[in-house]
Amino acid sequence: MKSTFEYMESSLRRTLVHLNIYKQKKLRTFLVLLFSFWGLTGFAQTWIWYPGDYEIWLSNQMQNRRTERGTFFPVFWKIDNHYPLIDFHKVFDLSTPEEVDIYVDGQYNVKLDGKAFEGSPKKITVPAGKHKINIKVFNQKQVPTIFVKGNKVVSDSSWLVTYEDKEWIDETGKTSDVSTTKWMNAGSWNFNNSDQLPANFMLPTKPMEAASINKTNDGTIVDFGKETFGYIKLHNLKGKGKLAIYYGESREEAIDTAHTETYDKISVDQQSGDYTVELSKAFRFVKIIADPAVTFDKVSMLYEYADLQDKGSFKCNDEEINRIYDVAKYTFHLSTKEFFIDGIKRDRWIWSGDAYQSYLMNYYLTNDNGTVKRTTLALRGKDPVTSHINTIMDYTLYWFLGVYDYYLYSGDADFVRSNYDRMKSMMSYVLGRRNKDGLLEGLPGDWVFIDWAEGLSKQGAVSFEQLLFARSLETMALVADLVEEKEDVGMYTKLAADVKKKLFEIYWNEQKQAIVHSYVNGKPTDNVTRYANMFAIFFDYLNDKQKNNIKNSVLLNNDVPPITTPYMRFYEMEAMCALGEQEYVTKEMKSYWGGMLKLGATSFWEEYNPKKSGAEHYAMYGRKYGKSLCHAWGASPLYLLGKYYLGVKPTGAGYSTYTIEPALGGLKWMEGKVPTPAGNIELYCSTTNLKIKAPTGTGTLMLKSKKAPVCKEGNFVNKGNDLYELTIEKNKDYDIKYQAL
Amino acid sequence: MKSTFEYMESSLRRTLVHLNIYKQKKLRTFLVLLFSFWGLTGFAQTWIWYPGDYEIWLSNQMQNRRTERGTFFPVFWKIDNHYPLIDFHKVFDLSTPEEVDIYVDGQYNVKLDGKAFEGSPKKITVPAGKHKINIKVFNQKQVPTIFVKGNKVVSDSSWLVTYEDKEWIDETGKTSDVSTTKWMNAGSWNFNNSDQLPANFMLPTKPMEAASINKTNDGTIVDFGKETFGYIKLHNLKGKGKLAIYYGESREEAIDTAHTETYDKISVDQQSGDYTVELSKAFRFVKIIADPAVTFDKVSMLYEYADLQDKGSFKCNDEEINRIYDVAKYTFHLSTKEFFIDGIKRDRWIWSGDAYQSYLMNYYLTNDNGTVKRTTLALRGKDPVTSHINTIMDYTLYWFLGVYDYYLYSGDADFVRSNYDRMKSMMSYVLGRRNKDGLLEGLPGDWVFIDWAEGLSKQGAVSFEQLLFARSLETMALVADLVEEKEDVGMYTKLAADVKKKLFEIYWNEQKQAIVHSYVNGKPTDNVTRYANMFAIFFDYLNDKQKNNIKNSVLLNNDVPPITTPYMRFYEMEAMCALGEQEYVTKEMKSYWGGMLKLGATSFWEEYNPKKSGAEHYAMYGRKYGKSLCHAWGASPLYLLGKYYLGVKPTGAGYSTYTIEPALGGLKWMEGKVPTPAGNIELYCSTTNLKIKAPTGTGTLMLKSKKAPVCKEGNFVNKGNDLYELTIEKNKDYDIKYQAL
Repeated sequence: MKSTFEYMESSLRRTLVHLNIYKQKKLRTFLVLLFSFWGLTGFAQTWIWYPGDYEIWLSNQMQNRRTERGTFFPVFWKIDNHYPLIDFHKVFDLSTPEEVDIYVDGQYNVKLDGKAFEGSPKKITVPAGKHKINIKVFNQKQVPTIFVKGNKVVSDSSWLVTYEDKEWIDETGKTSDVSTTKWMNAGSWNFNNSDQLPANFMLPTKPMEAASINKTNDGTIVDFGKETFGYIKLHNLKGKGKLAIYYGESREEAIDTAHTETYDKISVDQQSGDYTVELSKAFRFVKIIADPAVTFDKVSMLYEYADLQDKGSFKCNDEEINRIYDVAKYTFHLSTKEFFIDGIKRDRWIWSGDAYQSYLMNYYLTNDNGTVKRTTLALRGKDPVTSHINTIMDYTLYWFLGVYDYYLYSGDADFVRSNYDRMKSMMSYVLGRRNKDGLLEGLPGDWVFIDWAEGLSKQGAVSFEQLLFARSLETMALVADLVEEKEDVGMYTKLAADVKKKLFEIYWNEQKQAIVHSYVNGKPTDNVTRYANMFAIFFDYLNDKQKNNIKNSVLLNNDVPPITTPYMRFYEMEAMCALGEQEYVTKEMKSYWGGMLKLGATSFWEEYNPKKSGAEHYAMYGRKYGKSLCHAWGASPLYLLGKYYLGVKPTGAGYSTYTIEPALGGLKWMEGKVPTPAGNIELYCSTTNLKIKAPTGTGTLMLKSKKAPVCKEGNFVNKGNDLYELTIEKNKDYDIKYQAL
Repeated sequence: MKSTFEYMESSLRRTLVHLNIYKQKKLRTFLVLLFSFWGLTGFAQTWIWYPGDYEIWLSNQMQNRRTERGTFFPVFWKIDNHYPLIDFHKVFDLSTPEEVDIYVDGQYNVKLDGKAFEGSPKKITVPAGKHKINIKVFNQKQVPTIFVKGNKVVSDSSWLVTYEDKEWIDETGKTSDVSTTKWMNAGSWNFNNSDQLPANFMLPTKPMEAASINKTNDGTIVDFGKETFGYIKLHNLKGKGKLAIYYGESREEAIDTAHTETYDKISVDQQSGDYTVELSKAFRFVKIIADPAVTFDKVSMLYEYADLQDKGSFKCNDEEINRIYDVAKYTFHLSTKEFFIDGIKRDRWIWSGDAYQSYLMNYYLTNDNGTVKRTTLALRGKDPVTSHINTIMDYTLYWFLGVYDYYLYSGDADFVRSNYDRMKSMMSYVLGRRNKDGLLEGLPGDWVFIDWAEGLSKQGAVSFEQLLFARSLETMALVADLVEEKEDVGMYTKLAADVKKKLFEIYWNEQKQAIVHSYVNGKPTDNVTRYANMFAIFFDYLNDKQKNNIKNSVLLNNDVPPITTPYMRFYEMEAMCALGEQEYVTKEMKSYWGGMLKLGATSFWEEYNPKKSGAEHYAMYGRKYGKSLCHAWGASPLYLLGKYYLGVKPTGAGYSTYTIEPALGGLKWMEGKVPTPAGNIELYCSTTNLKIKAPTGTGTLMLKSKKAPVCKEGNFVNKGNDLYELTIEKNKDYDIKYQAL
């Protein structure tokens, strides 16, 4: 058994070696310093739990807050539950005895070196020396959690937890000597005080005033000036009778009370006092209709939000692009709650495909690891796997991709490692659903989604799914390597190569210079769609010739059915950016996202079809106001502008290495920040001047310039074809003169 | 899609055909009559849930009520949780509209033919005609349950439930047309009124007085006259200060306050009023020590019990045997709570090996299907299977045997069928743990228990485990046949045959005429123990010659280590009975169980070693009072006397066919009842006279007699060797003259 220190050291070492940052000797010095520092200042404590359990529990709470016309509207997929009985333990080596406070959500016992304290103590004394503390908690109603606060003896994610001891005693009372108990590092968030019981968590709120309140013949119409989310508050509500609040993301929806998607109906019977509705809702407008005997003075709201700080930014000479960026930011924040959700009116659920895009946007704006991890755990749920995530085949695969990207952007090997078992059983479900050709084809019960697009074929083995499948297998190989499961690395690498090989053998149509849509009854179809082709580009599965041909034969080919959802526009724009077509993308952004703004959008929509007009825009799913007017997947400019205009992306885990390829895409200048785990990479770029400062890792600037760029801080290497490269070292201010092409 | 009637008919038909009771035409008449009857009288409604979920939830509640010296003492194995989101539905065909009351534990919506009612209605109207009602419930804190009460529209186990809809809509709002949702019949118990919320269930209690209350120097000693279970009540408790209640199954334990296994310590601060402790305990004696300022008038208790009625009975000329039967009955009732538990002081848990014996005793006393089903579901828990049941290899296998016996005794094919998926995944876990020889050998994390016996080897592949394994595989084949999974029948039959073959190839020692204990490092050991040999006898895996040889070479051989637990005495006695050695068993019963009675036992113990004396009897697991003095497995005479003296046992499911082989075992006369699903088989037997009345099926009386037995009601067939057979028809009084050997 290794000591905690040794364990942490070797664990950290593996991570860092992978990231190529530190030499081993430096690491030990660093760790010794770090530990000494902790020793002097005391340790931070936090509420802890079995990893994933609180996340699943909280997501159940959140996802079951949806209503539709007053009726509870839960998810239709399986939701899981927490383990009711958990053992927490840690071994401490103390130089002096400690008084330790213990807070537990549940029925519990506490053991010191295997011997139980009487009852359920709220305070224990831990003697000096090496001691093991176990806390065992039973809670069926909510997740078993603990908070331990001494000086060194504090609860944090270094505690080990299990839902299954696998320990027993023989008839003499002797404990079994072989233990195969699987211990995990505890899960935590930021509940750092004893009174912050995780089960009581609620998002913060702040009061917001209405932009206008107008009385009409039959009620009151309130406009909050823009799409928003929270709790309507009626001031000085009094009288006796009924009152109804009809919510609208549009004015049309709020006043069309027979068709508004959400409402609240309450019975009032009070002399006075403010009233706040129980359930948060999405709206810009509300219409309030009350019995004559019911009155109120004013209407305001409590805005509910996840308190994530913006780290990334983008600004340029084009005010329309700046507006698009700002509205995308607002859309992203509205759609980020306890987890990344799809939309705030509908569904308020975690959809893996939607969340995957939120992850990517997050890396360029808020860069909050917590929300990514929580969302990843909530989506995965628990074993046994009985269906695809959200029942959708592609959404299972995006889940793997999300892990891949999370590792790349955060460098958080610990989380990725701790997730490996869940990845493995999920992948085992996927592998069990291959057809005889080894390809993924929708079996009964599998929803092959791809995109909301009329007439899109889901028959046979769709090429798009195989692309995601290949990348998912590559993710498995990557993580298998991190957990040092050599056999698994080999297996998944081989499987990934095999799927990629088939992808080109089966789906590549030489004549059309495109990946065809599907393979049905042993034959590739003639059907060309954009999906697989654009993913193949930014997955870098194609050679340059193929990429360029696809650009013309598919992406710029009007005969190939266009994409109408911001969801797939995300990837279409990404593919064009990856091909260096930022100018095209700037135009598209201005026309598509700008188009929504011109229609008065204050957040980006679930779907936008420029051919529609007026209230037609609000309809979807056969319902007049079925469309969600604030949908996370609409916020993709955040990602595109950060990754493909500022041009910053990690190439080594956690930005140990990264590249910068600025592309103005027709803009005169731009400036912005891209968050990394160590701080922001800052960048200013005009057609002649480029300024860069990076706080971390080793960057490679790849700059297109008509002439050799110059700066004092380093030497460019001419790579030919007007491309120049410069190594960016950390914490240096680069000021580069060049000439944009 | 079949109609409900058709479905029930075909389902019932399959059952009945298997049981050989009805011809198909008769069945239809019967069903039509039954349905008409229901139609006239209205239908009975009950609270329903996802099958197994309430049982698991309730068992968690029950099993976490154990304390040890004031400290919470939970199970060490994994406990599961309920699905928080459940869909319930049923299609009704109504001749007139109905008002229907809806009660739900959880947040819910109600749909009629797919369309949701507004809000969460407490009353709906269902129009005449064919309509589908769905109720979807979210409850994370406790099991989602519903109670529906109209005239024909009532909740019962014919409703279908799922935790996973696998339904989705496309962009036009159209629902997916392929559904692979797995629907199960709802679970229920006897919560037949709207106010009997399942989550509020508590066992009933009744007040009981103490036999004696004595003040001593330092406290009060209360004797309840016999082992009991419940809540201590202090009458007119008043004053301010501390009070402690020390529980003892023996007087020694209650007064040895430093070592009593359980106690309650309370702070009193009241003027007057009765006080009842919060948690039920097991005890005969309690010692109460209070601060001088704390007084009370009287001590009584609330006896807590499962309200099961005795159906079987046994009485004979030997008063000691009658006492043993009565104390066994009391022991069984004390150890039967919401589920069959091992002991009432310790562990108050459901152990599969212990429960298996309770099932068998239950079939001869209370014949309560509900407790068997609940215990079976609770033990099984949920997928994924991560370890053996209770972590014990043999206990997993007993679980399968329990299903086998349940089907045989109850004929309840519906339950057994609905259990098949859980059996399959459990067996798949077992099959995954075979060694290279295809035998079950303890892997790290597997507890190979067999029995509490000093020095018992658990090394290698133990023969005893292979016997249970073979019978478990036979059970799988039986149930696979009931669910008409033909491939599975073949697979499990072959696997069972293979294990049985190996059993004799590997473990049979011709020289010792015995099955040896184990197979270690590719070689059978020389070690002979009783376990496998006695199971092989009553599993009927041996020919007559082998059986008889084993009797002498093992069972009656004092060189083979004796068995000291009532647990394995159960099977040892059963094996001797199966060999016709009832006289031997009578003597053993009188010496072993009679031995405990002579020591003052008022319930039978976890372990009894006649060589010990005084308080030595109370020690176990290295603790002075570690032994449980009321342990279900001590009650085996209930089973032995019913099955092997009265001699009644089913041979077809649910007593469609059965045998009666009375054996006085040295008694002069005996009389008793053996419960069947259709009522009791009654029997009186002396050495010359035998009276039988059976309410069900077709019995075969196998009677040993010196001369040809005679009766007016039928004709005996002489089978040779003093054995005579008579077919017993139902509802006939048989009065037989014969001459016992």
